[in-house]
Amino acid sequence: MIGPFGGIIATTLLRAAMKHPERRGEPLSLTVNYATPLTDGTFELKAQLPRNNCSKQHWWLELRQNSELMITGTAVFATRSETWSSTDAVFPSVPPASTVEKFLPMDILAWLNSYDVRIIQGSILENTDELLTHQWVRDEPSRPLDFLSLTAISDAFLPRIFVKRKRTSSIGTVSFTVYYHVDENGLAAHGEREVLGLALALRFYNGFFDQWGEIWTPEGQLLATTSQIVYFKE
Amino acid sequence: MIGPFGGIIATTLLRAAMKHPERRGEPLSLTVNYATPLTDGTFELKAQLPRNNCSKQHWWLELRQNSELMITGTAVFATRSETWSSTDAVFPSVPPASTVEKFLPMDILAWLNSYDVRIIQGSILENTDELLTHQWVRDEPSRPLDFLSLTAISDAFLPRIFVKRKRTSSIGTVSFTVYYHVDENGLAAHGEREVLGLALALRFYNGFFDQWGEIWTPEGQLLATTSQIVYFKE
Repeated sequence: MIGPFGGIIATTLLRAAMKHPERRGEPLSLTVNYATPLTDGTFELKAQLPRNNCSKQHWWLELRQNSELMITGTAVFATRSETWSSTDAVFPSVPPASTVEKFLPMDILAWLNSYDVRIIQGSILENTDELLTHQWVRDEPSRPLDFLSLTAISDAFLPRIFVKRKRTSSIGTVSFTVYYHVDENGLAAHGEREVLGLALALRFYNGFFDQWGEIWTPEGQLLATTSQIVYFKE
Repeated sequence: MIGPFGGIIATTLLRAAMKHPERRGEPLSLTVNYATPLTDGTFELKAQLPRNNCSKQHWWLELRQNSELMITGTAVFATRSETWSSTDAVFPSVPPASTVEKFLPMDILAWLNSYDVRIIQGSILENTDELLTHQWVRDEPSRPLDFLSLTAISDAFLPRIFVKRKRTSSIGTVSFTVYYHVDENGLAAHGEREVLGLALALRFYNGFFDQWGEIWTPEGQLLATTSQIVYFKE
């Protein structure tokens, strides 16, 4: 893997905006760009609010190590009002988490130690062409779901190229986006339980592939949709 | 509509990076955040290159009017090498563009005048629940496809909420992302012909919905994948 788990880096940037004294509203979208692999050590975060409307906040985010810019990002926070709502995505038919075997940690993916992942279909170990992953996932140790853990969980999938080729290779996320479809009350109601994650890829082309995902509650509420573009080495 | 066509704004930001003397490589990803509706008049663009690796460039993009920040964005450019490649998305079975009726301009969507759009399924006019749009689209007047026109075409769909509710309403894109899966030679080979666009939405929730799309050549080459999150008023 090129650099540490991107999900926790994205979460760290989002947290800088969440904790900012001028923050109003809740996360609506987040995009994080991984310019350079982070190294173990201290880092400096900056969350700037160049544009602040009555209902939306547009944030610039950056992370530096030794004054060098390593990660850039943008986030939008919004104050929602209740409106007509509808879910067009379809919650798949899946067995309950308790009946699915826990996925064992892989040396190359250290972040798996921080999750309880149970892959229903679409695993590196599977002897099929299935590239669409269905998995149950929750933090390990468990903690209540919030915008921070939801962000990291949106990146907690086996990289699609591992599943496609049934082997590991050197990869690194270049850009990662999350759209949030839930508010704090909805997350609080979910508590510490697992969520269902879906992930797929549409195209692998000359060193990069895309990855698309959905995060659902077991009751079929779509919490977040996510995408990323990832570098891979053959 | 809240503000002018987001596709041309995104393209204008991308163009600032494309034309920058330090630009190397080709677009890999672009995210544009629409903080405030633009007004007719002059604007100032800034493309900054805070991080420049050997194979990737990370850009900050911004657009101001009267010194006020209106639009923010980030882009990644990459120099690709030939590798194993594969397309997992499936090109749908569709009739040729010449046999599909041209979609007529709508007052509310002025940008339709700059495109030849032929909607195969998933239209505001259709009396079905089909929310997945298949459409042929090309610039009008026609021009060779390049990264700029591909970016704008990635936004050239009827907003999903129009198709869902079979009526127009006030909407505005908040954040828009494009991943590019093609290089300049591939675009040059396509020329001025139409592309096939697919678009769907996964969730409409309390004032915002997401939109996901794919742009294909008629031969079944996936050129770009795209997402956006959009504000709507009831």
